[in-house]
Amino acid sequence: MEETNPGWLTRGELEQARAQMPILYVEAVPVRVDDAGEVTEIGLLLRIMPDGTMSRAIVSGRVLHHERVRDALLRHLEKDLGPVALPRIPVSPQPFTVAEYFPTPGITPYHDPRQHAVALAYIVPVSGDCRPRQDALDLVWFTPEEAASALVQQEMIGGQGTLLKQALAHMGRLV
Amino acid sequence: MEETNPGWLTRGELEQARAQMPILYVEAVPVRVDDAGEVTEIGLLLRIMPDGTMSRAIVSGRVLHHERVRDALLRHLEKDLGPVALPRIPVSPQPFTVAEYFPTPGITPYHDPRQHAVALAYIVPVSGDCRPRQDALDLVWFTPEEAASALVQQEMIGGQGTLLKQALAHMGRLV
Amino acid sequence: MEETNPGWLTRGELEQARAQMPILYVEAVPVRVDDAGEVTEIGLLLRIMPDGTMSRAIVSGRVLHHERVRDALLRHLEKDLGPVALPRIPVSPQPFTVAEYFPTPGITPYHDPRQHAVALAYIVPVSGDCRPRQDALDLVWFTPEEAASALVQQEMIGGQGTLLKQALAHMGRLV
Amino acid sequence: MEETNPGWLTRGELEQARAQMPILYVEAVPVRVDDAGEVTEIGLLLRIMPDGTMSRAIVSGRVLHHERVRDALLRHLEKDLGPVALPRIPVSPQPFTVAEYFPTPGITPYHDPRQHAVALAYIVPVSGDCRPRQDALDLVWFTPEEAASALVQQEMIGGQGTLLKQALAHMGRLV
Repeated sequence: MEETNPGWLTRGELEQARAQMPILYVEAVPVRVDDAGEVTEIGLLLRIMPDGTMSRAIVSGRVLHHERVRDALLRHLEKDLGPVALPRIPVSPQPFTVAEYFPTPGITPYHDPRQHAVALAYIVPVSGDCRPRQDALDLVWFTPEEAASALVQQEMIGGQGTLLKQALAHMGRLV
Repeated sequence: MEETNPGWLTRGELEQARAQMPILYVEAVPVRVDDAGEVTEIGLLLRIMPDGTMSRAIVSGRVLHHERVRDALLRHLEKDLGPVALPRIPVSPQPFTVAEYFPTPGITPYHDPRQHAVALAYIVPVSGDCRPRQDALDLVWFTPEEAASALVQQEMIGGQGTLLKQALAHMGRLV
Repeated sequence: MEETNPGWLTRGELEQARAQMPILYVEAVPVRVDDAGEVTEIGLLLRIMPDGTMSRAIVSGRVLHHERVRDALLRHLEKDLGPVALPRIPVSPQPFTVAEYFPTPGITPYHDPRQHAVALAYIVPVSGDCRPRQDALDLVWFTPEEAASALVQQEMIGGQGTLLKQALAHMGRLV
Repeated sequence: MEETNPGWLTRGELEQARAQMPILYVEAVPVRVDDAGEVTEIGLLLRIMPDGTMSRAIVSGRVLHHERVRDALLRHLEKDLGPVALPRIPVSPQPFTVAEYFPTPGITPYHDPRQHAVALAYIVPVSGDCRPRQDALDLVWFTPEEAASALVQQEMIGGQGTLLKQALAHMGRLV
């Protein structure tokens, strides 16, 4: 699909760009909140990896040429959570953190063997019905305590467990 | 009403406290947002001042003893915008700024002749129906451009016009 | 000392205020940084508690009447780290979080049996020589990994260990 | 120089990338601060444009492949302000805003006819001696009031005047 839109990259062009410059990403931590805005649950996607293992992930994806950051957030949330999740995209462009994924492990807590990706990370309350699509098997809701637990953390890869703990800290829910 | 709740202050006690320590406030800028989270309108309360002039204001009020900041936000929003405004209290306790109101003018851009008040300021999208109550005549919605205009700014007092411009800047909507 | 300054509270008045309204605090996490701004060490005060046990703490104290938040930060840092610590007070009043200490445990991760205190929390790089004064025995520097370890965390009280982890997360150094 | 480093782009490759994906930038507002962290002056670069007009600008530049955001900040600050400016790179990766420069005017307040650039914007106190290099004629220091004035704002292009006002707002210095 990406290959037919002007300004989007073919697979070959994307490979080439990935070897030459940082690629801009957005990441979104889907949450359920109560009336006072306190986070009650965090949503994690469940995916089957190529080697058959399972991993849990937050919503993540590239920002396209001529696409606003908030439109990229909306597009990836809709792609991963379905059309009626009713995400509340943040009013401010200020992310809670910037996660720098390097192809070389150990430079930062984040690692992506494919590329140098720089992700603007946001917390996004969703109030609607989430129906994971595409390559995600399921969306599972966890309490803040469960999300920070070793069990869930070890099912996340590339440093997304660390990013999730940063999100919990930003919400005042990392104990 | 405040005098009958344990932990709340009588008018005399409040006067005494105001002369002796900073008083903690919350302030909320009510906004309307589109599906991508972009702010389309800012809501300002219209009030008649004791001298008969009109002034515009954002939602503002004290944090009570043993009250969480997010509960204080919810209480003041309900008090000023009515019970069905459906405010979306922020998930993070991090305010976009801290406004320090001094009884002496000129120390900061903020001034309150009654007291030294320190306000945690938040932007709060509201999706429901707003019906101003108490001492507010009306709630009027302005575009970001109108809210930053000299006309609206000169109708705000105590430095709240400056706070509003800070909120617009934080949302990326101050041109 | 506090009793002779106009606007400051006597011990009796402070006791009374503590029972009636939230008390505004500032908290500062002292850090050492390298040339690229990356945090290399976190400084924790070592204190002997009334019961003879030791505890570790970040810099913390009240904001006084008619005192700016940044002046309160500077005053408490100088009080706890000495006159030549050369703290770099943040340029923005936006705290990385707001910690709400309740006299009742369990409402938030923070607890202060004496009072309801609301603390604006900042990260403060210090480049000079730190000489703890007053009731602190020593200032000890820890790596980010050590600061987040169970050993250090269990030596902190009232939820300050949680606040420290939030600071590490905000700096991108909580793994 | 860029053409000989592995992972960097030739001019042709950069042109191609600019037509196909958002390019990641960092921007830094250099400031002078007093002991309490309050901003006293903002530094703006003075440049002669190809058409002979003068323009004022903040520090700005690309993030390279396999370069950390904080290292890109340090590199561009050293390039524009000289080797002894002693910049204090922020401890947190959280930018005060994200500025989205589109080749099409009007989508955001930011415009870059060459490319779609997404800039992470930071405020950077500098305590050393600034000696502008490369294509900058001079670095001039302005008070916060001067920096927000129409005179200075109209000498800035591409929306950097708006970004400067956002920085002032974030520092609590936009009146």
